Amino acid sequence: MSRLFVIGIGPGAPEEMTLRAAETLREVQVIAGYQGYIDLVRPLYPDKEYIATPMRGEEERCARIISEVLKGKTAAMICSGDAGVYGMAGLLCEMAEGTGLEPEIIPGVTAALSGAALLGAPLGHDFAVISLSDLLTPWEKIEKRLECAAAGDFCMALYNPSSRKRADYLRRACDVVLRCASPETVCGIARNIARPEESVQVMTLRELREYQADMFTTVFIGNSQTRIIDGKMVTPRGYGLKK
Amino acid sequence: MSRLFVIGIGPGAPEEMTLRAAETLREVQVIAGYQGYIDLVRPLYPDKEYIATPMRGEEERCARIISEVLKGKTAAMICSGDAGVYGMAGLLCEMAEGTGLEPEIIPGVTAALSGAALLGAPLGHDFAVISLSDLLTPWEKIEKRLECAAAGDFCMALYNPSSRKRADYLRRACDVVLRCASPETVCGIARNIARPEESVQVMTLRELREYQADMFTTVFIGNSQTRIIDGKMVTPRGYGLKK
Repeated sequence: MSRLFVIGIGPGAPEEMTLRAAETLREVQVIAGYQGYIDLVRPLYPDKEYIATPMRGEEERCARIISEVLKGKTAAMICSGDAGVYGMAGLLCEMAEGTGLEPEIIPGVTAALSGAALLGAPLGHDFAVISLSDLLTPWEKIEKRLECAAAGDFCMALYNPSSRKRADYLRRACDVVLRCASPETVCGIARNIARPEESVQVMTLRELREYQADMFTTVFIGNSQTRIIDGKMVTPRGYGLKK
Repeated sequence: MSRLFVIGIGPGAPEEMTLRAAETLREVQVIAGYQGYIDLVRPLYPDKEYIATPMRGEEERCARIISEVLKGKTAAMICSGDAGVYGMAGLLCEMAEGTGLEPEIIPGVTAALSGAALLGAPLGHDFAVISLSDLLTPWEKIEKRLECAAAGDFCMALYNPSSRKRADYLRRACDVVLRCASPETVCGIARNIARPEESVQVMTLRELREYQADMFTTVFIGNSQTRIIDGKMVTPRGYGLKK
């Protein structure tokens, strides 16, 4: 019987995939995804059929993979990071509705986790994950969420902090957070996670406001307890250390 | 040179580990962790030295692994799920401060992601992760965060929804969320993720309030847009489907 998988491949390097993700990719006949992610996995699995569509080709990508599976093929849609966090799992469930297909979802390490690991432990306590992209969400809703996350003293991971058309969104997000949080709040950025040019930087919220993020950046904002420890960004869980 | 790793091993089944986590565990001499997680990995890597401590033995576990690494051994602290999300990465950074050791953190699939994959795509839009354990956090702070997450219309993943001493915490959490959210909000639970007895259930927020969670349960609360699609819990990202 043919099967339809949605697979989170992690931040990019093949070794950041789960064993289940790697094993499933070995077994499928067709792999679909955004061109940039296909380029990452094609060298590992050269003898597959590939369906690559450009950014914003999400619906077409889903329609094409569903059609392949309905023809009897087993196929996987790949997503960077996790399959469900701003990934394709939801859209594929929506588009598969009524076809009788049941997407099987294989989770992966989303940038909030992979970026956090590079910085230290910025998400060591309750946290919120927020995308600053207003392509599919009104900015007012994004702003409301930033405000609520700051009011709740959540740690935050911000996805899509910038793009060519939205150069000042990170600054605007910081201004919202600054209504509740101290400008000295410990923040950090992770760039090009799991790529050769990977880098991290720890800074204050005041400095983050001036930072020029690009689309390869994941942003972390600490809570009121977040500290810098030996250069790392660490949010304690609350163990009363008896050092 | 000796090295100190903190590794998220994912929800439990070996195939849910990343390739990097598995490879690193093969290479270390010492593996430390909570007894329950050590039991999971020991069969895979039988010829290691093991340091197993009971629940709440976190500080002792950190002190012992740091001492092994300072003696020149390469060691890994394992955490279920991710290393940083309610994991040991932060505490180990704190306790390693000033020793010259630099913990290397290997992320893993936290229960918010693995449970979500089983349910469908409940975290398909901005989300908050909140632990209901008041062992290290005052309940007032937890309640404030629940309130803010609900006010922001975040999807939520709730960790530690119950224990013997806190049988009614999930009900109390639902009552807070119900101040902002409809009782018909789509919710779900994932139990014993990646174990043989794994199960999921989709329900309304009203039903969740009556649900008896245990410590093997991860709870998901949808946002105002979350829907049930072919039995799955799906939060759309906002693609205007042209079906």
